[in-house]
Amino acid sequence: MTRRGFASDNNAGIHPEILQAIAAANQGHVLAYGDDPYTQRAVDAFKRHFGDDIAVYFVFNGTAANTLGLAAVMRSYQAVICASTAHIHCDECGAPEKFAGVKLLTCMTPHGKLSVEHVRQHMHGLGDEHRAQPGAISITQSTELGTVYTPDEIRALADYAHAHGLLLHMDGARICNAAAALDLPLRALTRDAGVDVLSFGGTKNGLLGGEAVIFFPPRALAADFKFIRKQGMQLASKMRFIGAQFEALLCGDLWQRNAANANAMARRLADRVRGIVEIAYPVQANAVFAIVPKRRIADLRAYSFFYEWADLDGERAIVRWMCAWDTTAEDVDGFAAHIAEVLREA
Amino acid sequence: MTRRGFASDNNAGIHPEILQAIAAANQGHVLAYGDDPYTQRAVDAFKRHFGDDIAVYFVFNGTAANTLGLAAVMRSYQAVICASTAHIHCDECGAPEKFAGVKLLTCMTPHGKLSVEHVRQHMHGLGDEHRAQPGAISITQSTELGTVYTPDEIRALADYAHAHGLLLHMDGARICNAAAALDLPLRALTRDAGVDVLSFGGTKNGLLGGEAVIFFPPRALAADFKFIRKQGMQLASKMRFIGAQFEALLCGDLWQRNAANANAMARRLADRVRGIVEIAYPVQANAVFAIVPKRRIADLRAYSFFYEWADLDGERAIVRWMCAWDTTAEDVDGFAAHIAEVLREA
Amino acid sequence: MTRRGFASDNNAGIHPEILQAIAAANQGHVLAYGDDPYTQRAVDAFKRHFGDDIAVYFVFNGTAANTLGLAAVMRSYQAVICASTAHIHCDECGAPEKFAGVKLLTCMTPHGKLSVEHVRQHMHGLGDEHRAQPGAISITQSTELGTVYTPDEIRALADYAHAHGLLLHMDGARICNAAAALDLPLRALTRDAGVDVLSFGGTKNGLLGGEAVIFFPPRALAADFKFIRKQGMQLASKMRFIGAQFEALLCGDLWQRNAANANAMARRLADRVRGIVEIAYPVQANAVFAIVPKRRIADLRAYSFFYEWADLDGERAIVRWMCAWDTTAEDVDGFAAHIAEVLREA
Amino acid sequence: MTRRGFASDNNAGIHPEILQAIAAANQGHVLAYGDDPYTQRAVDAFKRHFGDDIAVYFVFNGTAANTLGLAAVMRSYQAVICASTAHIHCDECGAPEKFAGVKLLTCMTPHGKLSVEHVRQHMHGLGDEHRAQPGAISITQSTELGTVYTPDEIRALADYAHAHGLLLHMDGARICNAAAALDLPLRALTRDAGVDVLSFGGTKNGLLGGEAVIFFPPRALAADFKFIRKQGMQLASKMRFIGAQFEALLCGDLWQRNAANANAMARRLADRVRGIVEIAYPVQANAVFAIVPKRRIADLRAYSFFYEWADLDGERAIVRWMCAWDTTAEDVDGFAAHIAEVLREA
Repeated sequence: MTRRGFASDNNAGIHPEILQAIAAANQGHVLAYGDDPYTQRAVDAFKRHFGDDIAVYFVFNGTAANTLGLAAVMRSYQAVICASTAHIHCDECGAPEKFAGVKLLTCMTPHGKLSVEHVRQHMHGLGDEHRAQPGAISITQSTELGTVYTPDEIRALADYAHAHGLLLHMDGARICNAAAALDLPLRALTRDAGVDVLSFGGTKNGLLGGEAVIFFPPRALAADFKFIRKQGMQLASKMRFIGAQFEALLCGDLWQRNAANANAMARRLADRVRGIVEIAYPVQANAVFAIVPKRRIADLRAYSFFYEWADLDGERAIVRWMCAWDTTAEDVDGFAAHIAEVLREA
Repeated sequence: MTRRGFASDNNAGIHPEILQAIAAANQGHVLAYGDDPYTQRAVDAFKRHFGDDIAVYFVFNGTAANTLGLAAVMRSYQAVICASTAHIHCDECGAPEKFAGVKLLTCMTPHGKLSVEHVRQHMHGLGDEHRAQPGAISITQSTELGTVYTPDEIRALADYAHAHGLLLHMDGARICNAAAALDLPLRALTRDAGVDVLSFGGTKNGLLGGEAVIFFPPRALAADFKFIRKQGMQLASKMRFIGAQFEALLCGDLWQRNAANANAMARRLADRVRGIVEIAYPVQANAVFAIVPKRRIADLRAYSFFYEWADLDGERAIVRWMCAWDTTAEDVDGFAAHIAEVLREA
Repeated sequence: MTRRGFASDNNAGIHPEILQAIAAANQGHVLAYGDDPYTQRAVDAFKRHFGDDIAVYFVFNGTAANTLGLAAVMRSYQAVICASTAHIHCDECGAPEKFAGVKLLTCMTPHGKLSVEHVRQHMHGLGDEHRAQPGAISITQSTELGTVYTPDEIRALADYAHAHGLLLHMDGARICNAAAALDLPLRALTRDAGVDVLSFGGTKNGLLGGEAVIFFPPRALAADFKFIRKQGMQLASKMRFIGAQFEALLCGDLWQRNAANANAMARRLADRVRGIVEIAYPVQANAVFAIVPKRRIADLRAYSFFYEWADLDGERAIVRWMCAWDTTAEDVDGFAAHIAEVLREA
Repeated sequence: MTRRGFASDNNAGIHPEILQAIAAANQGHVLAYGDDPYTQRAVDAFKRHFGDDIAVYFVFNGTAANTLGLAAVMRSYQAVICASTAHIHCDECGAPEKFAGVKLLTCMTPHGKLSVEHVRQHMHGLGDEHRAQPGAISITQSTELGTVYTPDEIRALADYAHAHGLLLHMDGARICNAAAALDLPLRALTRDAGVDVLSFGGTKNGLLGGEAVIFFPPRALAADFKFIRKQGMQLASKMRFIGAQFEALLCGDLWQRNAANANAMARRLADRVRGIVEIAYPVQANAVFAIVPKRRIADLRAYSFFYEWADLDGERAIVRWMCAWDTTAEDVDGFAAHIAEVLREA
């Protein structure tokens, strides 16, 4: 049960430096709900990365970061344009619809990445009260399929969005993996590329738990987000422990180290298995999607559980192998050897 | 900043045994979202306290526990009858209204405790579609004013509720303090007293963060709660760390030790200051509400911040002093001495 | 069944001039959803009453007018301060909570009328994210208890609201009755008294069905209300027939005639029965609230059904007798004679 | 403006027999909110068509019938599978998402008709709390593209739905057109084909305004729908006038006559223009979808406005021509002649 597997970066634990930061913050009493020095220092760390004029708020998890971030800037009759593979569409059980009231308009995309071309499909009926009105484009970085938007690709979407009165929302549950993959500062692929609202993921990158919602100027959005967060059931009473985690993640290079390791391990895994399985999508972050015979999945899972992503033709399936901050080269090589053994038998 | 104060039990940190449990759970990979042995053992611990046939779900915080627990068992046109001082009414920024759609019908009560007499005020217009239909009674145990319902008082409310087709919901953010105060098992003042849905609080009693929603048979409620929790943005990915905390809290007597200490310190504080200030409500759990001159509040806060609860007459205010799992006799005596010094000067 | 009774002004039918206007509008095809000349002329009629710079939207009923009007100008974490007797609180089955997400904060008032004094009770915790933030005051004109706010009373509430960043909402389901009672133009007790959002009632004043939501500058509110109305399920496809009704009501003095008759009949009824029953509230519009022995209610209802409003002491109840646009002096005298006969027997 | 056009069946007025029924119901006082003989007789008429054991409720419009009907039988975390062209997805501004909280899962279909094959695409992730759980299939009869489901096609969807724990919802805004087209009783293509919840359209078939939501046993659904309707802002106070309209529509054969005329006129129009334009979809009810050069649309609209439905290739568009209960052969021939004239010039 404690073997490191390839099911999800959520299955990994807490990075030791993060856990140490939690322990270090466990001193005496501090004010609850964020009015404490740990939270303040975490906010400061975010400002060093993204600029002094941002607004940043901590929440418990990614579903809330996405849903409340959108709720803050959308009216309920608006729609969010996203990829058909988007986490907000596929994996949040209708939370954006329920809480924000919005409709999601989805686009079929190659490799999980939206382009202006896709967005345009939904840009009709503007001003017509019968149609939910496009109010935002939401992209995931890195995507649910392990691909990464370049800053230019993001900028193109942002320019289109802003030219049409829309906002650009980024689900950055794995934003650190994307930045590490591109070898760019976090700011370059978010604020500087035109993103308006960012869900900044911490949990998948070594935290016990914690995400942040960041609003970027010059659009001064969501001055009232603190009320939305509270009504959205996401105000942590002992917020110092979220703050302390983010401080540890962002003050040094831990965010980068963790993400870069996960990415490197995914590349290593892809390299190790490339002759044995077909890789379904470009391996640009910490996920490997491979095409395998369905009847061998059980044997493949003997190493560790992983998710079947999609059935291709009844015979073959796309499966997802995910690397984490703690995945080691030995883990990868062991899993690759197992894959080779199982599939060569076939 | 790190001095232990009397502002809130939320201002305390993590009990060392809880933090140790988190660290101990930080081994390798386990499945995310609750399908892990730590969560399973925590569920088992709850079952030992409350019976094998309960359903228990972990969430991040108390607002969510209350709101989602009610959402699970209410239709949106229903109403929840509660005290005018109830946390769900005063301190959750309209989360129950927003997420569950329900209306809260409030009653003026002495000392924060509802009785059947209060509830009856709202039991009219039944079956009339113009009125939100009473669907639940919600009580807080221990109450927001530091008082405690006896099992008989709860049973009377439960019997009335059930006789009228309502459910009894308990906001148990401080349920351990109530059980410790009554020196009763947790079950005696919840399930055995007729409670149908319980928010079980952990955060205020020494956890880093974590609450549970428990549904009691024989009313088999909310078989679909896992979907409500997810859509309610409260499904923790690294749930093992909530599970591990609850396992540590509930397997031994830590829940009782922490709560009993907080209660004892509140009684000690009340005893120490009784000749100096008027105590506003019976001190039955871990809160002391005292009446003090408003103009001395700043001086009183020189020891540590605390909340002004209510303005009495422009001259005097009710203030709240809260004890926590980590409050020591020295803390109490130091604060009491400070109070005495400040107020005797007056 | 077709006898004119005193249960409700909703029990009356359609004024002949209104029905004639519907028939007259039933010519050929016009565009649906309001882009037709009847709707345009109704809008023009409203502008003549309230000023050219208003925004006015038609909806089906009063619950929608109130709920959507509030939804347009409130954020979901906000609260609406109203009388405990307000229709939005007592008689809309939680529609404002469900659709707008808001909390209603109620005040005990004499005769159903709010004053600044009442509002102040809820003006605390401002800026505190734990509390739903007061965002509007809502008053009903004429009130649910048959009383009428003077323009000065409204202005005082408006000034207080605006000084504190709140809006003033008026549930004007019987706004015409109030204007007729005060012998003032509609504008004098709404826009000119500081109201920001008005539900303008038509149905109780002789329409088949139709209400309007009006937003007043200088606060340019709710430019996007057409989307809120559509998402709120209140966009009429054959809107010309709502438009035609309002044109007939407002272009001449029909609004005034209908309301003035109802008011006069209520005064007549009160005068006729004053020696026989105690009148509970000032009779200022078209309702008479009387205190009668509960055991005689069945006999009293032999004339026509009416509502028991409140139980006073187990022995006596407050009942409501409502006059409508079509109530005649003969109806009143007949009912008064019946009341006298029944109660004198007692 | 009063010429009968081909833009929409919503642009037609009130059938004279319906208007006469409204006038006839305008006698004296009756109880509001549906407790009146007209509403009762309308309910009885529905029972004669659909069986004595149905539950039927009147609402104002189709968006509400669909949204509230779904809200009554869905939990908010559920999803509704529908065609990508469905009115609930394209033309209700997100009302189902906002009010019911549900997600819509759409399928690309030929001619607007769902089949089991389409539905199956979304039947994965069952029991997985990350995904909105399919809870209903919704079909439109006749469809938004003017096609009609046969009873066998509906039965196949119903059987699949019921075998998988889903309900079958039918948006019957034009249910009478479908029944007339199939020359079947209303019951044959609804209840007897397995439909669980039906939005029964009146407005497009000659009413001033009014729709019904019908729940079919043996699944006894939505006993509490009256509260959902009220909270959903759709309880008409003068409901007698909706009741009287439905009584007039359903007691005799008016429902059939109106729908059959609209259908016949659409077939006539299609026949008249078939040599001149390409007909895009089978003309089975009262709509004709034709492919025309975009640059001639303005000229075509010189006869009367109509909607451009979809852009095909920048050069050509699909346009919709709709016939109504009052469309005459002369109207059709005049419009066809105009079309011929305009397009032959091209």
